[in-house]
Amino acid sequence: MKKTRYSVILGNLGNTCDRYLSSGYKDNLPKEEMIRQAATIDGVQGLELVGSWDITRKNVKEVQALLVGNGLECVSIIPDFFSHKQWGSGSFCAKDPTIRRLSLEEARTAARIAREMSCPLVNFWLGQDGYDYPMQADYMTERKWMAEGLATVASEFSDLRFAFEYKPREPRNRSYHARAADTLLMVQEIGLPNVGVCIDVGHALMAGENVAESAVMLHHYGDKLFHMHFNDNYRAWDDDMIVGSLHFVEYVELLFWLREIGYNGWYSMDQYPYREDGMRAVRESVRFLQGVEKLLTPENMAAMRALVAKGDATESTAFFRELIMPTHKG
Amino acid sequence: MKKTRYSVILGNLGNTCDRYLSSGYKDNLPKEEMIRQAATIDGVQGLELVGSWDITRKNVKEVQALLVGNGLECVSIIPDFFSHKQWGSGSFCAKDPTIRRLSLEEARTAARIAREMSCPLVNFWLGQDGYDYPMQADYMTERKWMAEGLATVASEFSDLRFAFEYKPREPRNRSYHARAADTLLMVQEIGLPNVGVCIDVGHALMAGENVAESAVMLHHYGDKLFHMHFNDNYRAWDDDMIVGSLHFVEYVELLFWLREIGYNGWYSMDQYPYREDGMRAVRESVRFLQGVEKLLTPENMAAMRALVAKGDATESTAFFRELIMPTHKG
Amino acid sequence: MKKTRYSVILGNLGNTCDRYLSSGYKDNLPKEEMIRQAATIDGVQGLELVGSWDITRKNVKEVQALLVGNGLECVSIIPDFFSHKQWGSGSFCAKDPTIRRLSLEEARTAARIAREMSCPLVNFWLGQDGYDYPMQADYMTERKWMAEGLATVASEFSDLRFAFEYKPREPRNRSYHARAADTLLMVQEIGLPNVGVCIDVGHALMAGENVAESAVMLHHYGDKLFHMHFNDNYRAWDDDMIVGSLHFVEYVELLFWLREIGYNGWYSMDQYPYREDGMRAVRESVRFLQGVEKLLTPENMAAMRALVAKGDATESTAFFRELIMPTHKG
Amino acid sequence: MKKTRYSVILGNLGNTCDRYLSSGYKDNLPKEEMIRQAATIDGVQGLELVGSWDITRKNVKEVQALLVGNGLECVSIIPDFFSHKQWGSGSFCAKDPTIRRLSLEEARTAARIAREMSCPLVNFWLGQDGYDYPMQADYMTERKWMAEGLATVASEFSDLRFAFEYKPREPRNRSYHARAADTLLMVQEIGLPNVGVCIDVGHALMAGENVAESAVMLHHYGDKLFHMHFNDNYRAWDDDMIVGSLHFVEYVELLFWLREIGYNGWYSMDQYPYREDGMRAVRESVRFLQGVEKLLTPENMAAMRALVAKGDATESTAFFRELIMPTHKG
Repeated sequence: MKKTRYSVILGNLGNTCDRYLSSGYKDNLPKEEMIRQAATIDGVQGLELVGSWDITRKNVKEVQALLVGNGLECVSIIPDFFSHKQWGSGSFCAKDPTIRRLSLEEARTAARIAREMSCPLVNFWLGQDGYDYPMQADYMTERKWMAEGLATVASEFSDLRFAFEYKPREPRNRSYHARAADTLLMVQEIGLPNVGVCIDVGHALMAGENVAESAVMLHHYGDKLFHMHFNDNYRAWDDDMIVGSLHFVEYVELLFWLREIGYNGWYSMDQYPYREDGMRAVRESVRFLQGVEKLLTPENMAAMRALVAKGDATESTAFFRELIMPTHKG
Repeated sequence: MKKTRYSVILGNLGNTCDRYLSSGYKDNLPKEEMIRQAATIDGVQGLELVGSWDITRKNVKEVQALLVGNGLECVSIIPDFFSHKQWGSGSFCAKDPTIRRLSLEEARTAARIAREMSCPLVNFWLGQDGYDYPMQADYMTERKWMAEGLATVASEFSDLRFAFEYKPREPRNRSYHARAADTLLMVQEIGLPNVGVCIDVGHALMAGENVAESAVMLHHYGDKLFHMHFNDNYRAWDDDMIVGSLHFVEYVELLFWLREIGYNGWYSMDQYPYREDGMRAVRESVRFLQGVEKLLTPENMAAMRALVAKGDATESTAFFRELIMPTHKG
Repeated sequence: MKKTRYSVILGNLGNTCDRYLSSGYKDNLPKEEMIRQAATIDGVQGLELVGSWDITRKNVKEVQALLVGNGLECVSIIPDFFSHKQWGSGSFCAKDPTIRRLSLEEARTAARIAREMSCPLVNFWLGQDGYDYPMQADYMTERKWMAEGLATVASEFSDLRFAFEYKPREPRNRSYHARAADTLLMVQEIGLPNVGVCIDVGHALMAGENVAESAVMLHHYGDKLFHMHFNDNYRAWDDDMIVGSLHFVEYVELLFWLREIGYNGWYSMDQYPYREDGMRAVRESVRFLQGVEKLLTPENMAAMRALVAKGDATESTAFFRELIMPTHKG
Repeated sequence: MKKTRYSVILGNLGNTCDRYLSSGYKDNLPKEEMIRQAATIDGVQGLELVGSWDITRKNVKEVQALLVGNGLECVSIIPDFFSHKQWGSGSFCAKDPTIRRLSLEEARTAARIAREMSCPLVNFWLGQDGYDYPMQADYMTERKWMAEGLATVASEFSDLRFAFEYKPREPRNRSYHARAADTLLMVQEIGLPNVGVCIDVGHALMAGENVAESAVMLHHYGDKLFHMHFNDNYRAWDDDMIVGSLHFVEYVELLFWLREIGYNGWYSMDQYPYREDGMRAVRESVRFLQGVEKLLTPENMAAMRALVAKGDATESTAFFRELIMPTHKG
């Protein structure tokens, strides 16, 4: 079996802010230090880089050198469609055609950076593409603009893979890429082999999904699960907490199914440790996933296959209990 | 413009129970009386009939005579896949192959009844097809069984239309037909022209959807909005309340878009008036919708088209306010 | 340390229904058999009995004999204010004064049964006392009626303890005893030493509470945590699932705090195993709690006290991870 | 009847940011301009001022002059316990005793500013006082610290009123002042006549409350509703939208009950118009409330009193429908 590759979005290690404390809960760390810290986390072999924040046309070589120097791969480029005023009312589906054109340019820039970094994946999180109020959006036209724009970029860079990361809301009250299924519908509409979906576990929980089921569905309809982001929350908002700090059973089931469907992408950490030390928080997340992976022995995998085939809820529950609190332990 | 046709699910007029008061909050009414009551509601021209509860192989002629006698059309047959112990762990995706075979039979029976009643639509609400606990279901295989079974029935009755009514949960903690987009994915997978989706407004609210956006999406991907059920709730559960008792803006936007996409199916009431007089509750729902329809004058339709094109939230909000509390009134 | 006493609400072992399958998912079991089954569950020493369903004026002696014969204590009497049409629009706060008088009678009956059974606790779950629609209830007057009625009964039976079990909704869309804090406010208003609160873990989760924090709050304001019901859910509805089937961390924290505040009441199972064998489901719940209790060694209790004093989220998370997936295990 | 006095939190008219776009969606406006804009909104007679952002020890006289010059009263001072790193892990219940001491100082400063401004109210929104993770907080001790600190300040400034504004979460995942009832418990514990509660309608919706019922409850237990903040949201998060953009029925019921309980405080706008023009958004909110007020004629008030006494849901629903879409109109 292929070994799991863990990665982290670089910003996880830096400062974090919210709408009340816009200067941040912590101090800003130099990029060199963040990259160095990431490299020291046992198991982490790659980084995801966010446009503007981490990577620009100008610092590509410099950042690449830092990655190489620290033995890290570039896992994905995440274009910045959220941190500039110009995207405030959307990017690919903005009503202003100038903004839509700029979106294409921004996406192309990200794709070119990915090529330069030998990075195979561009991850689109289009958080501003949505709406806030009733009767504010033309659902028909705007979704069409979005599909067209994304198809344009993906067809121009057929050597790269493009993953759409869905999230039901925030920063808009309603996103167009809101859930696994609606994002998959657009992926099918675009119809290109290099276009797929990224599941952020926290976004899926927030959307009321069973994450494992969403992963299986994306696999079923054309092997479209391209990428995975990990974090945790209370199911109501994108709290971006340490992986496994709240959910255990769900994570075991998810990792079971990721193996079953043959997912071989990265397991990437995507958190917002507002008040925690970034490196320690990310390291704890990786350790949690490593712990779960250790539970997925061939025997346990076989047992779990039998459980989902049988469907006895009491037996399934007992299985999880025995995993973590074995009756005959100690 | 075609006049809106209102209908009601017959059981709305009868007794209602829940898990604590299983004998019901009200008294049972004879079928004849319920049908007669429905016919007296101004605007109601059709009925939906639920298997077991309202319609069986045995009473088809009798019920048809009652409908004809009261000047009502049969709008849909809703096969009963929920009120018998045998469906307790699913119908089309039950793990027991015998149950899956029985599901086909039940569906065929419903389809034959529809034919006999000259009813063009069979509405599948597969509420038991899902699961409750983690590690209890094989999401891959069970969804496949479901698609195969439904395709089988739909292809055997190509003269009828089949609508899948989604609902995120209840009676199972997780349904397979959970949201508009995932149900549409299965509709596309089946790939038959007579298969589509039914939106129950309350189910969509409960799923966190913007109902209007879901309607547009179903239209966009192959004109797949086949049927509409109306009720209201607090967005957290299928409370099946009187239409418009909680939401107003959302209903105006929904009816606006139903016109824009050329939906010409029925507007059907689907409530559970636990503690209310059924006929009065249904009549109030129809009146609410008629009130909203009256607001949709050609001028207001044009204004709303301009609003969704412009996207100014304050202007959109002011529009709704002026609709209901005109500044210069009185 | 006093040993934990586990109990179960008798109905957990019987048939279960919902609004779609009102005759039940399973077969009815004779009371004798249910009581016998309860007694065979390792750790279970007591039963809670629901009015109408389990216990009436007429069968007190017979049921008591069955309990004694099976070595079980009667933990609480739960008066039936939900399964008869007469309570459909409320009991203690019904608008009809006749119903309010009947509520007093029903409560007195339950209290007398408790005395006869030497049962120290009457548990009031007033699920019908609330409302469904806006502008349907007089929040001022109805809450007053409720407090007065409950005070009347509690003062008449000062030898018994009365616990109010809160739940945000179902069967009403809004309950008056909705959350820990508002129920506590009424308890304080009543001001009798024998009146307190029952936490049902599932109800608290559904109310968005941190159950452990609610327990501490009830303790802080006058030692008012009188009783505990255990089950699990997805935080959105009262799914009444097997304890620990979804939540682990929350249960460890809860049991930690129950010890810290010196809670010495029963740990009572309150589930609705719709499609599961009742006895096996209840037994699994007890085993889960026993498993958690085993983790609460003096060393772990000390460690947890240090964690809540320090407040380092990463350290707290790591503690839970090590509890269930020790790094150096195996 | 006393005329309703509308006010606005000054920041509503300025720039807005979120965690992705920390420099803000709009441009910064000079304070003079924001105050001038507020004064031009028909009906607005007062301002609430936030510490750090709007008001400091240094600019008191200057700001007061601006208010006077624009004919505006100072409605409340809202001390800044959220926009500085030092409060990142709490203020009154921070684990660090130095921070707790600083909280007292900050509160006293706000109170002194209020005196200087002849402002009768200090509004405490203690958003950082809570916790994020399980096993991270000592619910017992921290709540005690909070009560003690708040009591200290309130007793030192008995000429001022202090309102605690609750909110279930954000910026912490769990707040201590989370809901109306738990905040009221602390108010009762403090036991001072000048301490009460502020309802922010959006916070209450987000907490799953029926806002009208919460207002009545706060009135019932000692007339403790001191202040009201208005905005709107989708019931799941503090979206801080234009008042009435989503909820109508709830607002009518709320304003009905505010009259019934004799609330005579301000109706204050508290929004975050991220992508909207601030002044237009606030003005639209005020217009909505003015529209609702116009509906509350003596006849309608009497009708509504009759409805809540009767409790017929269909009649109540019909009443609202007729208010906004009269059957015999036009």
